[in-house]
Amino acid sequence: MIRAIVLLSGGMDSLVTTAIAAQECEELYFLHFSYGQRTQAKEQWCFSQIAKHYNAQAAKTVDYHWLADIGGSALTDPDIRLDEHREVPNTYVPFRNATMLCAAVAWAEVLDAKSIYIGAVEEDSSGYPDCRDSFFGAMQDLIRQGTVAGDIRVKTPVLHFNKAQIVQRGIALNAPFHYSWSCYFAEDEACGECPSCKLRQKAFLNAGIKDPILYKGQK
Amino acid sequence: MIRAIVLLSGGMDSLVTTAIAAQECEELYFLHFSYGQRTQAKEQWCFSQIAKHYNAQAAKTVDYHWLADIGGSALTDPDIRLDEHREVPNTYVPFRNATMLCAAVAWAEVLDAKSIYIGAVEEDSSGYPDCRDSFFGAMQDLIRQGTVAGDIRVKTPVLHFNKAQIVQRGIALNAPFHYSWSCYFAEDEACGECPSCKLRQKAFLNAGIKDPILYKGQK
Repeated sequence: MIRAIVLLSGGMDSLVTTAIAAQECEELYFLHFSYGQRTQAKEQWCFSQIAKHYNAQAAKTVDYHWLADIGGSALTDPDIRLDEHREVPNTYVPFRNATMLCAAVAWAEVLDAKSIYIGAVEEDSSGYPDCRDSFFGAMQDLIRQGTVAGDIRVKTPVLHFNKAQIVQRGIALNAPFHYSWSCYFAEDEACGECPSCKLRQKAFLNAGIKDPILYKGQK
Repeated sequence: MIRAIVLLSGGMDSLVTTAIAAQECEELYFLHFSYGQRTQAKEQWCFSQIAKHYNAQAAKTVDYHWLADIGGSALTDPDIRLDEHREVPNTYVPFRNATMLCAAVAWAEVLDAKSIYIGAVEEDSSGYPDCRDSFFGAMQDLIRQGTVAGDIRVKTPVLHFNKAQIVQRGIALNAPFHYSWSCYFAEDEACGECPSCKLRQKAFLNAGIKDPILYKGQK
């Protein structure tokens, strides 16, 4: 029985990663983090829908509000204005992927799961240090050294995809894009203006496919 | 200004680590984790007293109840009976040091702190994989790869001490041992019978020093 944990935010990268994991594994356990991100309610809804769609063995939301409590990111602090024009955009949440992967590793030890899927993307992630190949290599080594099992693998199937390729792969796998969400700000209709909306819209445009979610002002 | 984060459980290893950090650094920020351990209230009290004693710039308790929620450890699950007679004792909490260090690294990025102190002990830790030198080396590499700063150092000053040496160093540095706690079960008088009490008592005996905390049945 191939058992895996999938980190699922509810965005399109983690949705397509889920679709790939569903092809490769028999039992999926889903992990979501609530850490004070601005669109948490919407993400939680997407998480539940996608987990159900893929017949989750279990779907767990971890309370990570300490991440907002320590501050330092425009994603969790409404007083910090979004600024993508820096070497590392201030939507970066310090060491977020590491802290989330560690929770997944702990759960994998308990479940005896041997794979952890994460939808990180290197190319489009604009300089986040914890989205690079070298980071995932170091995480693999940490798992080997710091767990009893030692053989839990971190899988990053879309790491070297661009966003259009992610859309195409998702379409090929019948991923339910209507359950995914990317907008940094709005929860009812996507704003279409934040950097995350723009990346998503460009991806669907380049893939030649219509995005099924609703944007502001759209019929 | 040398600024550091100290992981402080309230046990004697982290107390002595704090005493060493106080010698080496000018500004100390303390981090404690509440994760459903059996003696959480007592540990929280010790944490607050020790942080105050060492003039903390800030003392933060992180809610890590997800660690108890995923289960798998006798430290967090009252239904699991303590069993130290295994290759890895079932007091092991999966990947605990990794998950805690990652939170400290995230906070260090926000504070621009360059050191993180942790009171891990290799010799007496009876096979926990996340208390070994090789684990801390891998963590150092993960920080280099996964943070913006890249130069945050993990310090483990008591890693190669035995428990008697830890007591001796603490006494030499005037560490307030009356604010520390080791018992796995009791919060008023230490039981004197659990593996953690026994290690502590042996350490004070070998160091030739009287333990200032109260044990059950003691006057």
